[in-house]
Amino acid sequence: MNSAPLSGLYAPSLSLLTDLYQVTMAYGYWQQGLQDREAVFHLYFRRAPFEGGYAVAAGLAYAVDYLQNLKFSEDDLTYLGSLKSSAGGAMFPPEFLQYLRELKFTCDVDAIAEGTVVFGNEPLIRVQGPLLQAQLVETALLTLVNFQTLIATKAARIREAAGSDTVLEFGLRRAQGVDGGLSASRAAYLGGADATSNVLAGQRFGIPVKGTHAHSWVMAFEDEATAFTAYAKAFPDDSVFLVDTYDTLEGVRHAIKVAREMRANGHELGGIRLDSGDLAYLSREARALLNEAGFNNVRIVASNDLEENLITSLKQQGAKIDTWGIGTQLVTAYDQPALGGVYKLAALRKPDDSGWDFTIKLSEQLAKTSIPGILQVRRYETDKGQPRADMLYNVAEPLPEQLTLVDPLDATRRRAVRLDAPYRELLEPIFRRGELVHTLPTLQESRARAHREVLSLDPSIRRFLNPHTYPVGLEESLNTFRTKLILEKRTVRPA
Amino acid sequence: MNSAPLSGLYAPSLSLLTDLYQVTMAYGYWQQGLQDREAVFHLYFRRAPFEGGYAVAAGLAYAVDYLQNLKFSEDDLTYLGSLKSSAGGAMFPPEFLQYLRELKFTCDVDAIAEGTVVFGNEPLIRVQGPLLQAQLVETALLTLVNFQTLIATKAARIREAAGSDTVLEFGLRRAQGVDGGLSASRAAYLGGADATSNVLAGQRFGIPVKGTHAHSWVMAFEDEATAFTAYAKAFPDDSVFLVDTYDTLEGVRHAIKVAREMRANGHELGGIRLDSGDLAYLSREARALLNEAGFNNVRIVASNDLEENLITSLKQQGAKIDTWGIGTQLVTAYDQPALGGVYKLAALRKPDDSGWDFTIKLSEQLAKTSIPGILQVRRYETDKGQPRADMLYNVAEPLPEQLTLVDPLDATRRRAVRLDAPYRELLEPIFRRGELVHTLPTLQESRARAHREVLSLDPSIRRFLNPHTYPVGLEESLNTFRTKLILEKRTVRPA
Repeated sequence: MNSAPLSGLYAPSLSLLTDLYQVTMAYGYWQQGLQDREAVFHLYFRRAPFEGGYAVAAGLAYAVDYLQNLKFSEDDLTYLGSLKSSAGGAMFPPEFLQYLRELKFTCDVDAIAEGTVVFGNEPLIRVQGPLLQAQLVETALLTLVNFQTLIATKAARIREAAGSDTVLEFGLRRAQGVDGGLSASRAAYLGGADATSNVLAGQRFGIPVKGTHAHSWVMAFEDEATAFTAYAKAFPDDSVFLVDTYDTLEGVRHAIKVAREMRANGHELGGIRLDSGDLAYLSREARALLNEAGFNNVRIVASNDLEENLITSLKQQGAKIDTWGIGTQLVTAYDQPALGGVYKLAALRKPDDSGWDFTIKLSEQLAKTSIPGILQVRRYETDKGQPRADMLYNVAEPLPEQLTLVDPLDATRRRAVRLDAPYRELLEPIFRRGELVHTLPTLQESRARAHREVLSLDPSIRRFLNPHTYPVGLEESLNTFRTKLILEKRTVRPA
Repeated sequence: MNSAPLSGLYAPSLSLLTDLYQVTMAYGYWQQGLQDREAVFHLYFRRAPFEGGYAVAAGLAYAVDYLQNLKFSEDDLTYLGSLKSSAGGAMFPPEFLQYLRELKFTCDVDAIAEGTVVFGNEPLIRVQGPLLQAQLVETALLTLVNFQTLIATKAARIREAAGSDTVLEFGLRRAQGVDGGLSASRAAYLGGADATSNVLAGQRFGIPVKGTHAHSWVMAFEDEATAFTAYAKAFPDDSVFLVDTYDTLEGVRHAIKVAREMRANGHELGGIRLDSGDLAYLSREARALLNEAGFNNVRIVASNDLEENLITSLKQQGAKIDTWGIGTQLVTAYDQPALGGVYKLAALRKPDDSGWDFTIKLSEQLAKTSIPGILQVRRYETDKGQPRADMLYNVAEPLPEQLTLVDPLDATRRRAVRLDAPYRELLEPIFRRGELVHTLPTLQESRARAHREVLSLDPSIRRFLNPHTYPVGLEESLNTFRTKLILEKRTVRPA
């Protein structure tokens, strides 16, 4: 047990960042001689979060980092060796620990680039390789990709509501742990935030950092105007005064008084910030006071549990807000704090190496039944690059000449694909036999991609309330095969 | 920018895990010569989460670790030195960076022990010391304590619903980032979970780890019974078979078949796990099948988006479930994924050192107005150790002979305290002048405390729906002083 829970948390190894059952299954496969049987897993979610029409893929850079450094350290192995079975013996024999000691990640990994818009059932990551290894990485991949995709999507929705206004993320204090804050800052920026308050995220990821002062700053001085003057002395060109410590509109008047002093010294106040009360009313009143005093360029920053629906409502009410500060609602994805991504076995090399067994997980709900095959996602686009429909197909089988997309939830809903329709394949090679073969884009590039891709979606898919469903279909022969497999595996009971 | 986001994440320094405004305020205080003015901050939440009657304090061990290692590294300072003002110059001058380089944490910190039941407005942590330092640690303390208190409280509620049944936490894959999983596992165990699936949490914190196999294990074999047999070979005394890959009750029959083989070899099946479908119905049917076959001791583990209300409902429906596997709902506190803890300045040494200025943050809502003073929480208990009422008082002022508790939201609600009533003071010294003066309890001890303290609360306070409000009052003279301060600070407008 470690009494210093933060110290050296991630160094040197994250190999134990997994559910125990990954390790017990690894032992079982090893014992059965199945460790190297070639397997294919897909990581995907079933429904876009927030009852929305799309998601923004994120987390791949973390996943790559995790996979590149996957190695059991001696500390890891000592811990695994210390685990006991109920009967009192070691849970894992030394021979298996030795196997883990020598284990190297040798899988192929294909993935959809961060910042791509994605939809339910589409594999964000496909892992192909030795069964034991491909299984072992499940938990960490899900942890990293589920959360960051969730937050990037939330940020894209907030960006949608904010339009061209500035969006600041400052949720660290309400985040779910250190990395719940840090990786949220990264994903929020990727999805559309302009800056973060999180200094560590600024340092590690090159995200612009922003921030001014807290209520305590004002409380530490004799009066509000003195506090503002002192702050302006420290940051003559970057001051945003928080005006609601005592009385918001009085605060605005004090800000104007200090802004006049600043102007007399050749500086301009950057903005004021409202953090409580009726933001629609207060922002209009503040704008009027500022303009009347000749401070038309002083920005109004607003915060206080804001999210996309509140931003939309405030805009409809004529709020005069230039910059939106978003904390809790963004970094925790408050209205849906988890994306239910899963990682499912979809193919297994036949024991005699004569081809593939495609596998399926049944469920009483068709939506939860998995999709067999070695899947690729083909996105058909208009000539202008607007997505029209996505097709999931099995790369291990030949494609028919005429392609038809079948709705996985309603096989009677179909779309024919024009033979000359332009498309791109979304899953790209990332690892080959455990070696990174892909140059990861910078965070800025992924952010630009997210921006471009979200805007390329039809507004009916981007809207918050009952969005239009973007068509994602199974290629017809894949759907036929899946149906056959379901019927084979499902028990037929007497009525 | 770091293209390997996980590598060495927390090493060597967490000093930048903060909002930029803490650093800008630090610079402002330093510039004003206010950096060493003695200040007092309180960290507290306003309302218990989940509309519940209490919370379980957690996160202090992380906070202590953070504070003990608070030091700006050269990398940190290089980054801060690289930040620019809008006018293009450096945001922070080299002299200030040198000040940060030499900065040592020298505050006094008092805190309520992890595992203690706590209520709205009670300081969980009090930081007293140089203004700059006491301000600087705000964000990290909030991040660490808000989240872990939230999760420990959720776990206590799930424990309440589960009674003496086993509770397993296995939420890592849906957690909010690496540490959103790791610190959640710790807090969940502290609050009442019996074990975790998270191997890293097992290694770092000594939490028992549990887990068996996934659906993919079953899919990797020719049929379900073969898969179970193979698993039993690997773990003859610790097998729990997941029975719902294809058809749940067929799965139970296959489990029974393999359990018979195991028994013939001198081993007993540990349990079966249901992960989908109608858990009330399926668990009763499974229990009947198992008992009929002579496997009355095989446990039934259930999972699938469970939380305290579903557990209560399943028990009312007569579900035959022995072990509750809780993932997403526990580690993200799904129904309220953030605790709104705040950190407020409450006292500032007068410039002439003649005593204290007590400070207040106003709000249009009385519930959001802060409490001035240097606060201690006194808990009055029955002779049997059952909490009766908590009193917040200002340790910097003498206490009157006769103590009266005043409801901070309704000054007409009062309680007199019996002169001989037994009590304990909840805030204990943790740091003195930056030195750790407290021996932290082990996680096991904190967990035992949480268990004891939650059970000591009246069931009316523990219930989920409209719990009774535990009385927390301001000592009367503190309340009088606070009211005076509010009236002084509040602008009186024409009606």
